[in-house]
Amino acid sequence: MESMKILVTNDDGIHSPGIKALAEALRKVGDVAVVAPDRERSAVGHALTLHHPLRAVQIGHDAFSVDGTPTDCVNLGIHNLISFKPDLVVSGINRGGNLADDVTYSGTVSAAMEASLMGIPAFAVSLVTEGIGEHYHAAAGFAAQLAREVFTRGLPADTFLNVNVPDLPGEALRPPLITSQGKRRYEGLIVDKVDPRGRKYYWIGSGEQTFLDLEGTDYHAVSRGHISITPLHPDLTNYSSLRLLHGWELT
Amino acid sequence: MESMKILVTNDDGIHSPGIKALAEALRKVGDVAVVAPDRERSAVGHALTLHHPLRAVQIGHDAFSVDGTPTDCVNLGIHNLISFKPDLVVSGINRGGNLADDVTYSGTVSAAMEASLMGIPAFAVSLVTEGIGEHYHAAAGFAAQLAREVFTRGLPADTFLNVNVPDLPGEALRPPLITSQGKRRYEGLIVDKVDPRGRKYYWIGSGEQTFLDLEGTDYHAVSRGHISITPLHPDLTNYSSLRLLHGWELT
Repeated sequence: MESMKILVTNDDGIHSPGIKALAEALRKVGDVAVVAPDRERSAVGHALTLHHPLRAVQIGHDAFSVDGTPTDCVNLGIHNLISFKPDLVVSGINRGGNLADDVTYSGTVSAAMEASLMGIPAFAVSLVTEGIGEHYHAAAGFAAQLAREVFTRGLPADTFLNVNVPDLPGEALRPPLITSQGKRRYEGLIVDKVDPRGRKYYWIGSGEQTFLDLEGTDYHAVSRGHISITPLHPDLTNYSSLRLLHGWELT
Repeated sequence: MESMKILVTNDDGIHSPGIKALAEALRKVGDVAVVAPDRERSAVGHALTLHHPLRAVQIGHDAFSVDGTPTDCVNLGIHNLISFKPDLVVSGINRGGNLADDVTYSGTVSAAMEASLMGIPAFAVSLVTEGIGEHYHAAAGFAAQLAREVFTRGLPADTFLNVNVPDLPGEALRPPLITSQGKRRYEGLIVDKVDPRGRKYYWIGSGEQTFLDLEGTDYHAVSRGHISITPLHPDLTNYSSLRLLHGWELT
């Protein structure tokens, strides 16, 4: 069997501990190239840089930093930078979970979505932590196991995976559960202050994270120590609303 | 009946023709506030600015420009800037359709998603054109009619709408169809050149837009002259893959 070729990216930037642990673990199961943002680009969603040029800096064999978003990195990596066409794209390991509605803001998850739109199997991995995170190597070990599984079995059509791993030592992690994307209560928090020159500014904060503890969801799994694997697709259609709207009379 | 209160935003920026036509049409059916990016912020997806402060400039009564993304505008508008709590958020009118997988990159659609996450009914409106667009007023007229409908009926739970209007005079538009999000073939195109100082740069292009002509989808509707209304939600779970993945043995 030919060796698996893997492109690794993230949204915390090329120098984050998560991407280092991930690349290291994946090198044990395949050939690894790394293309990642030159600095933290979290909460950028599925953003693509269209209005200005992008630069890439080679920092090692098949390793590049790019002054763009994770979605840019996947595109540039595959089309222009790395030496192979990947069998798999893995994005992470993100510092902090990507759970419930927060998935829609996630650069980490969007990089996996982009690969999937290009027809390449992909998954995102996040370490569920409020701080800087401790157990990246345990999460990376699981990612390597999952990579092998995805390479062998393939993924269902139109599917990429969102993996969240509790920040626990390997032996304390409970088995992976297949979950759906959860829900959280919206808690906006915007700081409103005055700068040293007397001008007002606003800064978007994070508020309290209040997830609904619904069985079968990503949050329910990780809050009980399980690894969570959620199959995602780029289709935002709310199919259950289609029928309801058919009743509307619009002309 | 109390008058409807509407927040208008977009991703083409506060000075675009689409937002002007939209605000003008909506003023005939309710009170309108406008909070929009100070410049074009298209393809930013559901990006939220967390790493630097935001500035707002008041440019009229209940009208502000913000140096952030559409998602930032919805947050700042509702929490800090405008004088009322909106009954409805309308995002647009975007120059260019937001169809199929492209929805996931769209700042216009993400603004409506953000409002929906905040519990406020919302829809995005886009004019399907390859150029600068001509018939913004026809699209805006339909948006005003739809706004009234949404205000009267409410939207189904966890649902916001993605509306695409062909760039046709009002009398040539065919009736709205309720659709699902379509699919397109991925066509990446990245220009790779050398700058005046001899350094290489990359620029992400758009390639050919090749949508699959599937019945019931947004693309199928607009390409036949119909207005398309797609109910969306922020849940990316691919439910049909859940069962398939349950068979995987991961430890």
